[in-house]
Amino acid sequence: MNRRRRIYEGKAKILYEGPEPGTLVQHFKDDATAFNARKKEVIDGKGVLNNRICEHIYTHLNEIGIPTHFIRRLNMREQLIREVEIIPLEIVVRNVAAGSLAKRLGLEEGTTLPRSIIEFYYKSDELEDPLVTEEHITAFGWASPQELDDIMALAVRVNDFMAGLFLGVGIRLVDFKMECGRLWENDLMRVVVADEISPDSCRLWDLRTNEKLDKDRFRRDMGGLLEAYQEVARRLGIMPEQDRPVVSGPTLVQS
Amino acid sequence: MNRRRRIYEGKAKILYEGPEPGTLVQHFKDDATAFNARKKEVIDGKGVLNNRICEHIYTHLNEIGIPTHFIRRLNMREQLIREVEIIPLEIVVRNVAAGSLAKRLGLEEGTTLPRSIIEFYYKSDELEDPLVTEEHITAFGWASPQELDDIMALAVRVNDFMAGLFLGVGIRLVDFKMECGRLWENDLMRVVVADEISPDSCRLWDLRTNEKLDKDRFRRDMGGLLEAYQEVARRLGIMPEQDRPVVSGPTLVQS
Ligand SMILES: Nc1ncnc2c1ncn2[C@@H]1O[C@H](COP(=O)(O)OP(=O)(O)OP(=O)(O)O)[C@@H](O)[C@H]1O
Ligand SMILES: Nc1ncnc2c1ncn2[C@@H]1O[C@H](COP(=O)(O)OP(=O)(O)OP(=O)(O)O)[C@@H](O)[C@H]1O
Ligand SMILES: [Mg+2]
Ligand SMILES: [Mg+2]
Repeated sequence: MNRRRRIYEGKAKILYEGPEPGTLVQHFKDDATAFNARKKEVIDGKGVLNNRICEHIYTHLNEIGIPTHFIRRLNMREQLIREVEIIPLEIVVRNVAAGSLAKRLGLEEGTTLPRSIIEFYYKSDELEDPLVTEEHITAFGWASPQELDDIMALAVRVNDFMAGLFLGVGIRLVDFKMECGRLWENDLMRVVVADEISPDSCRLWDLRTNEKLDKDRFRRDMGGLLEAYQEVARRLGIMPEQDRPVVSGPTLVQS
Repeated sequence: MNRRRRIYEGKAKILYEGPEPGTLVQHFKDDATAFNARKKEVIDGKGVLNNRICEHIYTHLNEIGIPTHFIRRLNMREQLIREVEIIPLEIVVRNVAAGSLAKRLGLEEGTTLPRSIIEFYYKSDELEDPLVTEEHITAFGWASPQELDDIMALAVRVNDFMAGLFLGVGIRLVDFKMECGRLWENDLMRVVVADEISPDSCRLWDLRTNEKLDKDRFRRDMGGLLEAYQEVARRLGIMPEQDRPVVSGPTLVQS
């Protein structure tokens, strides 16, 4: 596996050529970045945790008929995925006001939204991922109206599933980000969930204490990132004892 | 008219109680503001010009069946309007990339857009009128999905009319902002165009020279604002000689 071709190295992951045409290997790095990579750190063991948590979520999404690019986990840091044509949007689904939405609309963090809100951000590091509307997306051809409908339907289903999954283990799904891609099969194109879903791309708050179990610990210099991700994995019933990085840090409330 | 009740004083206009219930008097001030009123100036004669240009546009909109709040001009600075419940959105229609869109999406100013784009900004000085999407608008109940459809249909029609009107006098309609309001008549609610449309709320470029004939002259410290607005009025065939403020300034290309 050492001589395989590297297709893309991003901030959090590396994509390698896969064993068969139309497949890729998605490698999870330990790099944590925020604010368009103006803040960076290496957090030993984060990649392993995200790979496992993402596997858990995508396996279940596939099972309930929500199509994803995920095929199977290969090892501690890598998973086999289908190559897709990434739609250049970050799709954010929000259930509770936090982060940029709270700031933008003057809402207090933690306010439950009147209903879930789907937002689109144009994937462009140079432009700092600006919020865009369906008008911008369809005018510039980043996705067709039909694709946008498909994406929104997927986003709603993923949100429903994840809200349930996390609620079951005492965690509130505040918001999450996903990416979608185009997948061709026998000349038919489908939109599928791609990239990753992990505590790097979600806001997850402990239901009882509101303790943050996600990347905001890093963004806001709260420490205990690895412990939080490990706690998410533990609650989801993954990460057998021997795989867990040895940690010491703040006590996290157990559900 | 001196003892009438002042309902609201904004940055560019004052609203007074009208002569009959359900009416208001909209008074155009000479104040020019930009960047959420961080930049301010008094430009003698601007109010008169905007009142006249707005009258011209709204009269024609009413004639072609695009409902507006406009009833009739009362005097040099004032017009009689119907009182509406303002929908808290600035509706921006863009035909050519300029201003915040150019910056936001990294487009060169002056690039013709693949198609016209409608944007919504939430009217809030405190939040600096943030860009919002249909999701935010309907989730927070600022407008219903039906009202949004009505607003977008109005926006498209106003854009078509104004593009034609200005093209006829050698001016390119780059973009404009409008506001809409709810008007009740016999228990029936209609969405109508409200507030003003004038060179304060449009980007108007001379077709041949690209010279700016709008508020960007003020925003960008180019000078010659009054002369530009007067030129717009002249081309539209309004402002009889004696009403025109006496000006001297940069030569403006005549169409
Ligand atoms: N199935 C897939 N096929 C092709 N590309 C994919 C697939 N899944 C994810 N990607 C892309 O692979 C890259 C993963 O790397 P990473 O997330 O580290 O990038 P990044 O630094 O966040 O940059 P980006 O802004 O592109 O996400 C992303 O660009 C993502 O869009
Ligand atoms: N027909 C109408 N009925 C009631 N209010 C109206 C009507 N037309 C316009 N308005 C409102 O009247 C005010 C006009 O004042 P002006 O445009 O100077 O305000 P402003 O300083 O720009 O503040 P705003 O952000 O509210 O527009 C605006 O708030 C506008 O929404
Ligand atoms: Mg990424
Ligand atoms: Mg106004």
